[in-house]
Amino acid sequence: MEVFLAGVGMTSFGKKEQSLQELMGEAVRAALKDASVSSVDAIYVGVMSPTAFLHEGNFASLLADFLGMAGKPSLRIETASSTGAAAFLEAYNAVAAGQYTRALVVAGEKMSHLSTSETTRILSEVIDREERRYGATMPALAGLVAHRYMYEHHLSQGTLEKLMSAIAIKNHSNGLLNPYAHLRKAIDEQQHRQSRLISSPLRLFDCAPISDGAAAVVLTCERGDIRVAGIGHGTDTYSLCNRRSLTSFASTRIAAQKAYRMARLSPHDIDFAEIHDAFTIFELIGMVDLGFFSPAEAREAVLRGETGLRGRFPVNPSGGLKSRGHPVGGSGLAQIVEVALQLRGAVEKERQVKIGNVGLAHSVGGLATNTFVTILEKTSTRRNLMLTWSPHYDAEAEVLTPIHPLAVGLASDTGILETFTVLHTPPEGFPSPMVLGLVREPAGNRIFARGVGHDGLKMNRQVYLRHMGSITYFTQRSLWYKAKVLCRKNYRKYNRKVNSVVQGLMKKAS
Amino acid sequence: MEVFLAGVGMTSFGKKEQSLQELMGEAVRAALKDASVSSVDAIYVGVMSPTAFLHEGNFASLLADFLGMAGKPSLRIETASSTGAAAFLEAYNAVAAGQYTRALVVAGEKMSHLSTSETTRILSEVIDREERRYGATMPALAGLVAHRYMYEHHLSQGTLEKLMSAIAIKNHSNGLLNPYAHLRKAIDEQQHRQSRLISSPLRLFDCAPISDGAAAVVLTCERGDIRVAGIGHGTDTYSLCNRRSLTSFASTRIAAQKAYRMARLSPHDIDFAEIHDAFTIFELIGMVDLGFFSPAEAREAVLRGETGLRGRFPVNPSGGLKSRGHPVGGSGLAQIVEVALQLRGAVEKERQVKIGNVGLAHSVGGLATNTFVTILEKTSTRRNLMLTWSPHYDAEAEVLTPIHPLAVGLASDTGILETFTVLHTPPEGFPSPMVLGLVREPAGNRIFARGVGHDGLKMNRQVYLRHMGSITYFTQRSLWYKAKVLCRKNYRKYNRKVNSVVQGLMKKAS
Repeated sequence: MEVFLAGVGMTSFGKKEQSLQELMGEAVRAALKDASVSSVDAIYVGVMSPTAFLHEGNFASLLADFLGMAGKPSLRIETASSTGAAAFLEAYNAVAAGQYTRALVVAGEKMSHLSTSETTRILSEVIDREERRYGATMPALAGLVAHRYMYEHHLSQGTLEKLMSAIAIKNHSNGLLNPYAHLRKAIDEQQHRQSRLISSPLRLFDCAPISDGAAAVVLTCERGDIRVAGIGHGTDTYSLCNRRSLTSFASTRIAAQKAYRMARLSPHDIDFAEIHDAFTIFELIGMVDLGFFSPAEAREAVLRGETGLRGRFPVNPSGGLKSRGHPVGGSGLAQIVEVALQLRGAVEKERQVKIGNVGLAHSVGGLATNTFVTILEKTSTRRNLMLTWSPHYDAEAEVLTPIHPLAVGLASDTGILETFTVLHTPPEGFPSPMVLGLVREPAGNRIFARGVGHDGLKMNRQVYLRHMGSITYFTQRSLWYKAKVLCRKNYRKYNRKVNSVVQGLMKKAS
Repeated sequence: MEVFLAGVGMTSFGKKEQSLQELMGEAVRAALKDASVSSVDAIYVGVMSPTAFLHEGNFASLLADFLGMAGKPSLRIETASSTGAAAFLEAYNAVAAGQYTRALVVAGEKMSHLSTSETTRILSEVIDREERRYGATMPALAGLVAHRYMYEHHLSQGTLEKLMSAIAIKNHSNGLLNPYAHLRKAIDEQQHRQSRLISSPLRLFDCAPISDGAAAVVLTCERGDIRVAGIGHGTDTYSLCNRRSLTSFASTRIAAQKAYRMARLSPHDIDFAEIHDAFTIFELIGMVDLGFFSPAEAREAVLRGETGLRGRFPVNPSGGLKSRGHPVGGSGLAQIVEVALQLRGAVEKERQVKIGNVGLAHSVGGLATNTFVTILEKTSTRRNLMLTWSPHYDAEAEVLTPIHPLAVGLASDTGILETFTVLHTPPEGFPSPMVLGLVREPAGNRIFARGVGHDGLKMNRQVYLRHMGSITYFTQRSLWYKAKVLCRKNYRKYNRKVNSVVQGLMKKAS
C-alpha cells in the first residue's frame, strides 16, 4: 500500500526550557494541524535515551497520555542517533501493512540540561565498549575517520580543513535562514580555523551542537501531495576495528541501495538531500556513499559551492545537524520534515531549493552503525517507473563477510598506523590531550591503541606496540628511533626507555 | 499478507553469568535452527533498558554485529515491561507489509547483576513522576490495586490471600515442569503466607523474580504450521490517579478487543493463555479483562483449579512471570514462544495442555500503561471465519474521555480513601514501612497521599488531608478522632497535634 505524508511539524531547535513531552506536544500539534486531523490510530515515538537523559523509563506511555491520546497504541523505537528515521520507518511499515490508516511519528530529545561532560558520557555509550575503554568518544572516532580520509585521498591538512570549513560555512549560512535552526549565525573560514580543536583534525565548528527539540509527521494511506517513494535501512560492524573501510560507510550504502531500488530511482534523480553531518567530514563521505558524487567530484562540488542553496545539488538546505542542531533522537525525523517542506515549497523563499520533486534524507546512528535513507517524492511527479539503479556492489554482502577471520588472539609488537586523532576533550579520568590510533597488526586485524606523544606522527608508518595492563600503547617511529640511537641498539635499554615514557603517560592519566 | 512463525527459541531464565548479547545469541541460534534457516532480512530487538542496566546506548547495532549479521537492518523497540511483545508486533507489521520475507525478533534483559535496590530504582522509572515522588514502586502500585480489588469485590483479607496464593502455587507447580523456568520449586499456601510482605497485601511470593534471559522468534510470510491470527495494542493513562477503574486495565481490554476482532475470534475460542502475572493479582484481573471470565467466575476458577494445566482453561502453563521469571524486556516474547510450543505439542508431556489450537499471550508494560495481546493459531485449524466478537464497550473511547476535567488546581482538606498499601521495601530515602494511599477529593479527582500510621485503616472512609511542602499526608479517622477528643474540639490544638505527628513522620523519613 502506498504511504503519504499528511502533515509535518517541528519545534525550533536549541537550548529549551520545556520538557521533552512539551516539545513533542508542540511538534505534534503542528503536524496534526498541518494534516487537518485531530486524531491518529497509533503513535511511534523516537527518543534515543529518555532513561539516561531524563530518568523516564516508559516514555511511549507517558507521551501518549500527555498528548491526550491514552488508549492509542504507542511505542518507542531506538537506533541511537538515527532514532527519528527509525520511528518513521516503523510507522511507514504499519501503515503499509494496513494496520493503521493514520500513524503519528514523533521524535526528539532533551539533553541540554545536563553538563557537556555528562552528555558526552551518555553519547559515548553508543560506541563499542572496547573503544570506550580507550577513552574514545564520538568526536574521537570522527577524528580518526577524518585523518584517514585525508591520507587516503592524498590531501594536505590545509585542503582537508578548507573542505570541512566550506561545509560548516555553507550549513551555517543555510541555518541562518531557517527559523527552526539552533545556531543561526554565519561563520567564516577564519572563525572555523580559530575554533578550538575537539579531536584533531576536527574543530568545534566541525561538530553539531547539543540541542533540544522535536519533530512530528502524520503518515497515512490516504492519497496526499507527498509520498514515501523509497526507504532503506542498514547496519555495520559495531567497532571501527572491523570495518573494511574507514572512509566509506557501508550502512549508508546498504540503506541507499534499498531505498533507490524501492523507489526505482537512481542517485541522479534526487534533487536535493539532507545528509547526516554530525561532523562536517560525514557530509563529504555521505555525498559519495549516497551515490551523488565520486570522492573527487564531492570535494570539487563542496569547494565550488555546488551544494549550496543556489547550487546544482543543494545539501542540507535546513542547515543540517551542524546549524539546525542535533537533538539526537529527533534529527532523523527533522530531516524528513525539511525534505517534505521543501517539496511542498513551504519554506522561506530565500531557503527554497530551485528544483524540488524528489528529496532524500540520510540519518546515521552511532559511528555509522545504523543508518536510514528515506526518499520522498511529490505525488504529482510524472516519471518512467521502469527506471532502476544497480550499483556495482552489494554493500550488505560486503559487510557480512568478516575481514580478518584469522586474527583472533594474536598480539603483535609492531603494526601500521592507519589513522590517529588527538583528543582534546576526553572523558573523565583520561589525560588531555590524548592520542588514539587505529593500528593494523601484521596478522591483518586492526586494533585500538593509545599513542605516546604526538609530534610528527605519520600515517601508514610502522609503530611499536607495548601491551601494558589491558591497554595497548603505540610509540611513534621518531621516539623509537631516538631511543634506539640513545641506547645504541641496546634493546633492554630501549625497552626501559619506552616503558618509562609509557609509565609517565599512565601516571599523567590517573 | 498472512504471517507465520517459522521458528522459536529461548534461554532458560534465571540469574545468568552470560552477557545480554550472549543470552540473545543463544535464543537466536535456537530459533534459527528451529526455523531451519541461516539468515533473516531484519532484526527486531526488544530490550527495556540497556542504558540503565548495562550502559549500552546502541544495542540494536551491537547485537546485529554480535550475531554476525552486521549489515542487516536492526532496530530496538521499547514499551517498558511489554517490550518483547512490542518487538513482535513491529516485526509482524514489517513482514505483513511485504518489507521483509523473514524477520527475526529477539528480546531479553540482563538485570540480576545489579543490587535489588538499584534494579527497583530502574524499574520504578516506568511509573509516573508524581507517583515516584511519593516513593511509589511497581509493587506499591500493585498493592494499591490489590487492596482496591478486595474492597470492590467484598472479599475478606483471607479470601484475597487465598486467591493470590492459589495463583502463585499453580504457577510454581507449572514452572517446576518447565526447564526454561527461573524458580523451579513447588510452594504451598503456608510458604506463601509466611513469605515477607512487600507492599500489603502483596507478599514476596506474589511478585515475579528479577531474572536474566532472552527469547527469539523468526517470523515469515512463507506458510508455516502456526500463524499470527490476531494482534492488538493499547495504552492507558500514565498515572493511576487518572484511571476510571483501578481493578480493570483498559489497556488490556483495548488490546484484546483489537486482537479478537482481527482474529475473528471470541474469548471463548481461546484454548489457553499466557497472562502477565508480574504480580499474582494481575493474573486474576487479566482473566477478566481478556474476556475469559466474569470477576466471580475468575475467582471460582482459580480456587477450583480450573486454570491449572489439567483444568478447563490453562493459564500460564509456562509458570508465568511468577515462576518462569521476568527479564523485563524479554517476558512478552517468552510468552509467545510458550504459546507456539504448546500449539505445536512440543513441550514436555506432563506440561502439554490438552486442547491447543488457539493460544493467547498477554503482556503488560508499566502499571498496565502499554499492553499487547497476541493470538496464535495452528494453521491447520478449520473454523468458521465469519465469527466475530463484539464486546459491549469501546475500551479505547473510554480511556480517551477524561474522568475529572474540572478538578484542576483544587486542593481539599478531606477526601475518601479509595485504596492504600503499606510498602515495606520503599526506595532509598523513604521510611519503611510507609503507607501510600489513593484519595478521591470532593471535586472528583484522585490524588496520591502518604498515610500517617496505618492501624485500622479502612477503605472508602473519609480521611483528612494535610499538604506539607510538596507532599500531601492523610490521617486515619481514628487518629483524628483521638486528637479531637484529646483537644476537646479545640481546632488549633487538633491542628498542632496532627502536624506534630506528620512532622515526626517526616523526620523519620529524612
